[in-house]
Amino acid sequence: MNPRAMVKLSNFLNSRNKLFQHKLLGESVGSCFKLTSSAAGISTSRQSYGADGKISGRIFADYAIFKGKAALSAAPVLPTFSKLESGHTKVERRGTIMLTFRPAIGERKYDSEKKQLFALSVTEIGSFISLGPQDSCEFFHDPSMKSRDAGQVRKSLSIKPITDGYFISLSVTNNILNRTDRFTVPVTTAEFAVMRTAFSYALPHIMGWAHSTNQLSDNVSRDSSKAHPQLAAAALEWDR
Amino acid sequence: MNPRAMVKLSNFLNSRNKLFQHKLLGESVGSCFKLTSSAAGISTSRQSYGADGKISGRIFADYAIFKGKAALSAAPVLPTFSKLESGHTKVERRGTIMLTFRPAIGERKYDSEKKQLFALSVTEIGSFISLGPQDSCEFFHDPSMKSRDAGQVRKSLSIKPITDGYFISLSVTNNILNRTDRFTVPVTTAEFAVMRTAFSYALPHIMGWAHSTNQLSDNVSRDSSKAHPQLAAAALEWDR
Amino acid sequence: MNPRAMVKLSNFLNSRNKLFQHKLLGESVGSCFKLTSSAAGISTSRQSYGADGKISGRIFADYAIFKGKAALSAAPVLPTFSKLESGHTKVERRGTIMLTFRPAIGERKYDSEKKQLFALSVTEIGSFISLGPQDSCEFFHDPSMKSRDAGQVRKSLSIKPITDGYFISLSVTNNILNRTDRFTVPVTTAEFAVMRTAFSYALPHIMGWAHSTNQLSDNVSRDSSKAHPQLAAAALEWDR
Amino acid sequence: MNPRAMVKLSNFLNSRNKLFQHKLLGESVGSCFKLTSSAAGISTSRQSYGADGKISGRIFADYAIFKGKAALSAAPVLPTFSKLESGHTKVERRGTIMLTFRPAIGERKYDSEKKQLFALSVTEIGSFISLGPQDSCEFFHDPSMKSRDAGQVRKSLSIKPITDGYFISLSVTNNILNRTDRFTVPVTTAEFAVMRTAFSYALPHIMGWAHSTNQLSDNVSRDSSKAHPQLAAAALEWDR
Repeated sequence: MNPRAMVKLSNFLNSRNKLFQHKLLGESVGSCFKLTSSAAGISTSRQSYGADGKISGRIFADYAIFKGKAALSAAPVLPTFSKLESGHTKVERRGTIMLTFRPAIGERKYDSEKKQLFALSVTEIGSFISLGPQDSCEFFHDPSMKSRDAGQVRKSLSIKPITDGYFISLSVTNNILNRTDRFTVPVTTAEFAVMRTAFSYALPHIMGWAHSTNQLSDNVSRDSSKAHPQLAAAALEWDR
Repeated sequence: MNPRAMVKLSNFLNSRNKLFQHKLLGESVGSCFKLTSSAAGISTSRQSYGADGKISGRIFADYAIFKGKAALSAAPVLPTFSKLESGHTKVERRGTIMLTFRPAIGERKYDSEKKQLFALSVTEIGSFISLGPQDSCEFFHDPSMKSRDAGQVRKSLSIKPITDGYFISLSVTNNILNRTDRFTVPVTTAEFAVMRTAFSYALPHIMGWAHSTNQLSDNVSRDSSKAHPQLAAAALEWDR
Repeated sequence: MNPRAMVKLSNFLNSRNKLFQHKLLGESVGSCFKLTSSAAGISTSRQSYGADGKISGRIFADYAIFKGKAALSAAPVLPTFSKLESGHTKVERRGTIMLTFRPAIGERKYDSEKKQLFALSVTEIGSFISLGPQDSCEFFHDPSMKSRDAGQVRKSLSIKPITDGYFISLSVTNNILNRTDRFTVPVTTAEFAVMRTAFSYALPHIMGWAHSTNQLSDNVSRDSSKAHPQLAAAALEWDR
Repeated sequence: MNPRAMVKLSNFLNSRNKLFQHKLLGESVGSCFKLTSSAAGISTSRQSYGADGKISGRIFADYAIFKGKAALSAAPVLPTFSKLESGHTKVERRGTIMLTFRPAIGERKYDSEKKQLFALSVTEIGSFISLGPQDSCEFFHDPSMKSRDAGQVRKSLSIKPITDGYFISLSVTNNILNRTDRFTVPVTTAEFAVMRTAFSYALPHIMGWAHSTNQLSDNVSRDSSKAHPQLAAAALEWDR
């Protein structure tokens, strides 16, 4: 009944991060309703040459799930912005949740050279976070769209319910390289709850709403005698 | 069974943004439970003359849904504030979620000149985010309220359940111009989940609670020997 | 069937804010499932003598519901902090959600002199936001606790389900003044959804968790060769 | 029927915080559905020698529940970061929710010297926040993992449903000291709702997503003629 399994850690990440190795740690194994044996980790590179001890540049914070045949990690990608003639700023390219699949190539070793990406759009995140326990879902992407290679690569992400969680599977058919890659990662209810909570948190940031609602307000009026909160909707509907 | 549909992009937004064109992109089409063919985008202007590459001015971040007969976009509008004699600040006019409807005037072209607005109030947002899958809802606005044209324009927004999502419809009856505009946009469950999550996120900002709870705290006491956290409620109920 | 009702606005807030008047505005009335006639507003003072147009001091952002017999408004109160010998900072007094009831003293006039307060504690907010549609709840406060007047004033807040929402009632029995004040405000499902969303947002701020999780991180290590994310729990359980 | 119980406060926290005393305060007792008698508080030290009145250092903000046989408190622990060669920053060690149990050693006195810790990992938090009213859950930790004492200490945290809430129990078996400590704290539905809301709030911070999504964006392009928001997913899937 005790699912603890002592597995030694040996982490040989090479300097170019081509080989993505991970040892399941037996330290923290739990069960909800029934015993499972899963572990979630974060992909880490070991280089840390910073001198000032301050956070700088981009911050990488993947949520990774390491399973027998493949690893799945998820990370938010922020939107980009462009300036308008008016001096205001507009979302240029919405952000995404980037999913990365890496195949297992040995006992708890994952191959970053054979990784495949799938960038969940805002609406696809909406599907993801509203999935009920028995629901399934499938998305199709063509990363070469609008180029001369349009249609040559087809990606399909499917989410299908299992007893405790979901199978999340990616299929990538590349007609140019004449190959198909398939990944399937079992995601427990607990891991899916982490994703749902984190994706829901990230969504307004990915849409740019976190930026537009948190900007410093310079809307402090000096003479508000003519305004009334109840008139907000009406006034705004006319003003714009 | 494969809902992928390659549609070329041609985007002829004119410089005054009067004509709002959009081509559905076949790149990202998915299905949950059953096949649908919808796409969500962001209304973009192409002008970006900024020199310093920094975000400035207001940030525009609409969530837009482009469908066959009309496009619907939603964006948060922040509250305005006024100063009190005491030096403190008070919400003057609450924010809203501004909904914008544009009619289709050709294959995936939307006419911004004929757009109509509906500003969801805080309580209307409460109705929106608490809608169950089978619930419906209707709101009525008079944007000319309190002016001599009161009653001349009547707006009605209705949300009605369909198999996978809702119909969101706006009807605007203008007795002055002697015309009625009607828009109906089918919103999928996934798109509605995006709206619910984004609207829930925006709500405390629109109410001003995000401003009042995130202000820098200068409440650090030097002698706390007389205080106890359990007394908070009681003390506050007397102090004010 | 059209619930629109044109009501003129006349707002005679006196300079000391003793009389809290409010005119229901017919502009924005809606219905969900069945017609209702309610309006939510924000209590505003008209004085705005600020010169620089910047937000300063405390920010007041009440969510107020004006009904026939009483008005109910809610606002977050931030925690206070105290310094420890170690130089670190600790929550001294947790924040609350302050509920304020004002009796109606005429057509849509509310008397601020007869207002009564009820400060929801963190755990009471937990009860509030987890109420199901058919659930009820009751809280008891003694604002004079631990003083010589302990037991002289008894406050009871009850939340009881009705067809579309809840009755929120406050009863204050003051043995010193020999009087009992009672307020009952019908809160629609939409208004309750606003409160639930806003209270859930405010809760981590009231607990001080928003402060402790958003502090600038100076946790960037220069030599991380000995660390591994999977060891976090174990290391922390030993270190403290 | 009135659950108010006047209990005097006497708080003799010694300077080293070894003895953790707490008096239940009768001020704020409530009931939902049925009468209960619980109180939630915050563990406080009384020293506050700060001179400038500003918040500095780490901020401690526990959520504590004081019951008859033991006290349970919860607090978020932030992740640590490390710099990469590229100048970017990466999560080095994920944060946790640290649970602390203290045994009661008299009427509402809790012994900090005999406290035991359990650090909930990100995925365990996912289990916690997705628990249904009838669900149960159990986690196992070995804080000595990977040292020569591996397997000598075994910790087990279990969450089991009761009529109004859950029993949260910790069992620590220490083979070196030849002892087993057990704690069981009944947590009401309201207290669990506070934890669920606060843990859900803290999760993106613990994962590092709050840091990666809130970083200042320098993604403002000057020439965006070649970009289109709909291409985000495709472009990103190729670029990385």
